Amino acid sequence: MLEALKEQVLQANLALPKYGLVTFTWGNVSGFDKEQGLVVIKPSGVPYDELTISDLVVVNLAGEIVEGDKNPSSDTATHLVLYKHFDHVGGIVHTHSPWATSWAQAGEDIPALGTTQADYFYGDIPCTRRMTTTEISGEYERETGHVIVETFRDRDPLAIPSVLVHSHAPFNWGKDPKEAVHNAVVLEEVAKMAFYSREINPNVKRMQQTLLDKHYLRKHGKHAYYGQ
Amino acid sequence: MLEALKEQVLQANLALPKYGLVTFTWGNVSGFDKEQGLVVIKPSGVPYDELTISDLVVVNLAGEIVEGDKNPSSDTATHLVLYKHFDHVGGIVHTHSPWATSWAQAGEDIPALGTTQADYFYGDIPCTRRMTTTEISGEYERETGHVIVETFRDRDPLAIPSVLVHSHAPFNWGKDPKEAVHNAVVLEEVAKMAFYSREINPNVKRMQQTLLDKHYLRKHGKHAYYGQ
Amino acid sequence: MLEALKEQVLQANLALPKYGLVTFTWGNVSGFDKEQGLVVIKPSGVPYDELTISDLVVVNLAGEIVEGDKNPSSDTATHLVLYKHFDHVGGIVHTHSPWATSWAQAGEDIPALGTTQADYFYGDIPCTRRMTTTEISGEYERETGHVIVETFRDRDPLAIPSVLVHSHAPFNWGKDPKEAVHNAVVLEEVAKMAFYSREINPNVKRMQQTLLDKHYLRKHGKHAYYGQ
Amino acid sequence: MLEALKEQVLQANLALPKYGLVTFTWGNVSGFDKEQGLVVIKPSGVPYDELTISDLVVVNLAGEIVEGDKNPSSDTATHLVLYKHFDHVGGIVHTHSPWATSWAQAGEDIPALGTTQADYFYGDIPCTRRMTTTEISGEYERETGHVIVETFRDRDPLAIPSVLVHSHAPFNWGKDPKEAVHNAVVLEEVAKMAFYSREINPNVKRMQQTLLDKHYLRKHGKHAYYGQ
Repeated sequence: MLEALKEQVLQANLALPKYGLVTFTWGNVSGFDKEQGLVVIKPSGVPYDELTISDLVVVNLAGEIVEGDKNPSSDTATHLVLYKHFDHVGGIVHTHSPWATSWAQAGEDIPALGTTQADYFYGDIPCTRRMTTTEISGEYERETGHVIVETFRDRDPLAIPSVLVHSHAPFNWGKDPKEAVHNAVVLEEVAKMAFYSREINPNVKRMQQTLLDKHYLRKHGKHAYYGQ
Repeated sequence: MLEALKEQVLQANLALPKYGLVTFTWGNVSGFDKEQGLVVIKPSGVPYDELTISDLVVVNLAGEIVEGDKNPSSDTATHLVLYKHFDHVGGIVHTHSPWATSWAQAGEDIPALGTTQADYFYGDIPCTRRMTTTEISGEYERETGHVIVETFRDRDPLAIPSVLVHSHAPFNWGKDPKEAVHNAVVLEEVAKMAFYSREINPNVKRMQQTLLDKHYLRKHGKHAYYGQ
Repeated sequence: MLEALKEQVLQANLALPKYGLVTFTWGNVSGFDKEQGLVVIKPSGVPYDELTISDLVVVNLAGEIVEGDKNPSSDTATHLVLYKHFDHVGGIVHTHSPWATSWAQAGEDIPALGTTQADYFYGDIPCTRRMTTTEISGEYERETGHVIVETFRDRDPLAIPSVLVHSHAPFNWGKDPKEAVHNAVVLEEVAKMAFYSREINPNVKRMQQTLLDKHYLRKHGKHAYYGQ
Repeated sequence: MLEALKEQVLQANLALPKYGLVTFTWGNVSGFDKEQGLVVIKPSGVPYDELTISDLVVVNLAGEIVEGDKNPSSDTATHLVLYKHFDHVGGIVHTHSPWATSWAQAGEDIPALGTTQADYFYGDIPCTRRMTTTEISGEYERETGHVIVETFRDRDPLAIPSVLVHSHAPFNWGKDPKEAVHNAVVLEEVAKMAFYSREINPNVKRMQQTLLDKHYLRKHGKHAYYGQ
């Protein structure tokens, strides 16, 4: 069942330690089969160097396990909310990658300061508001998804494929699991550079909108001319 | 004698350079056999790449060598005080890992700013007070243990499994040597991220108590649901 | 055609990930055959671990493809402007290496603070002005070259073989592709150290001109005595 | 001639890239045979991965080449001054290791903030004054040695085995080349941690003298009890 998607999800999970995005089991990747309405996701707490394709768990959008012997990631409910609300998203990655997590803990958006960010993110990368006590004490992981969706009420999730959850860590997405991981790597890199740029120049200003447009649209949309 | 524990202590010591927690011989791990009241500990000043199981030293809680040809770690007396005072602790790790040591030198607690810390530490990670001249000039390593115990007078060492010794470096513990090393890795990671979060936002506030509760109790205690 | 130069350009491109200067495809190296007026350059968006000599593209100074099946780097027009204006430059490297890019995003020159910089750069490493909306909306990559040339109106590009493009990232050059990469590595190292020196001492002053002269001229020009 | 010392000097030079202390050829190690008054030193500008024992150069204390086909390190005159003035020093290392160099560029001493430093350095690690124009324009490398010696007029070079040369980089020494490299590694580590401690707590105070005494004397002198 969903063998091709499982292979993508496995490879995307294994890419996390390779790119230095996770310590221990602090991350998970899922992939979404929109036609069947099924999600393949990493099991909870399984070390990456022991992870095999048969450990992956298949759940439906209601969160019910359709296939697999293991418990799915404890963050599964967050993934499901995002698949339900964000069209065209086929892969989601959650990590505690240190630079992005440092911004999440600080509770600040990562400002668009240069073309590295503009090549992937069409603007600032937002940090959610703090969650309320009710949200935390309730269906916490599902509410985490809802606060992300709320943060994107006036944003296009395809144009800004990452979010920082306040006092927590980032979630990233893409058209498939591989692209989601790719965006997670970019997020970590731009989070690091935005940090240093602000330290060098505390009065640093955002890049110009025209430059943001130029770089984002050079790589995305119908007028893109980057690549082959 | 204590072969299984020795193997655990050996592997835990060898994990320190693997996780980038030590330079040269700046660290040591011990394990405790509570029934027999015996501690297995790294010998003093032996490089990790030369360390073998026969180098390990067995001492009793009075600090007397029960087995082994080598001098035990110069920090042995600190380990012994912690085993005597902290119930259910079966492994202790001391390192000079750079991020945690930087906080120890600064003399500040690491504040609980996010869920990465909350997944392992039920609150701030405390820094001890400075030791007194009398303590330093007396039985220094034993007094180091006592100042740690004093720091935990109103804290549960199982819920906060690390401490920063002022102007020195961290000690970490766990139910066994492996868990103690695991906690030492987490400490280093949260020490780094807390640093960056405070630089990004000098007015950063602690995470909410409800979020701290949620994450800590999601992984610990009878209502835990993380993992398999 | 230009087989020796292609081999140099290939090796110089492959050196970028080896030296940790690039993430994904965020960089490109070109080499210039002055006699023939031809430039060999990396194709756009091709991963380094898949790059072979037959992927390289040969263009003339007008930007026309003379050989190759692939699109040349999207930054080709910038390279061409630099070859046209900077005599004796035979290799150019563009990366988004994190330390240099952080300074570029901050919009600040890297001040000459020590002999490491002086061994390679005869003064500060300049950041360009912000590009205008007209420049960005026009022939952007060509205008990027022109703003670099403008920045060097009163500077010798051979004595300062790097530039930071505002809100973007560095370009580096040298007598051949290998030297250009060498300079890119040095830039990253001095960008890092200048950052830390300013954090340690916010009032840090530039190194003395006599020391700058001594170190630069110890390695460059007719009185050089470093090396074999 | 001096085969054992040459082997030590070769291994110590090769250890520099292994420990991450050098970029390209930015470092050199020498060893001193006091009885014969001869110094074995790295040749100038030779890459570490090409360095063989036959490349090493033997010079006498007057700086004359006694054996070897290559030019000795351009910093040879500095090494010679230190061997002449610092008794019991048998090995010297110069690098541009980034953390120590950042402090040197900032022109500040590295304060003794914790036991990691105290285990090796009996106090702050000094930065020299700026060199004068006369010194720089004269016999620069020899004068670099003299300004280091001046810095240690009231310090014991055996108890503080490193120095930061202002606007330049560190020199380190020890009883032999291996110990000198060991000290260079420690210097880099304590330079990093002192930086972070000051950022965490800008009002951080030096460690207590009693703690400095305790740790330094636990490892050095007749009452040492660390190690086997």
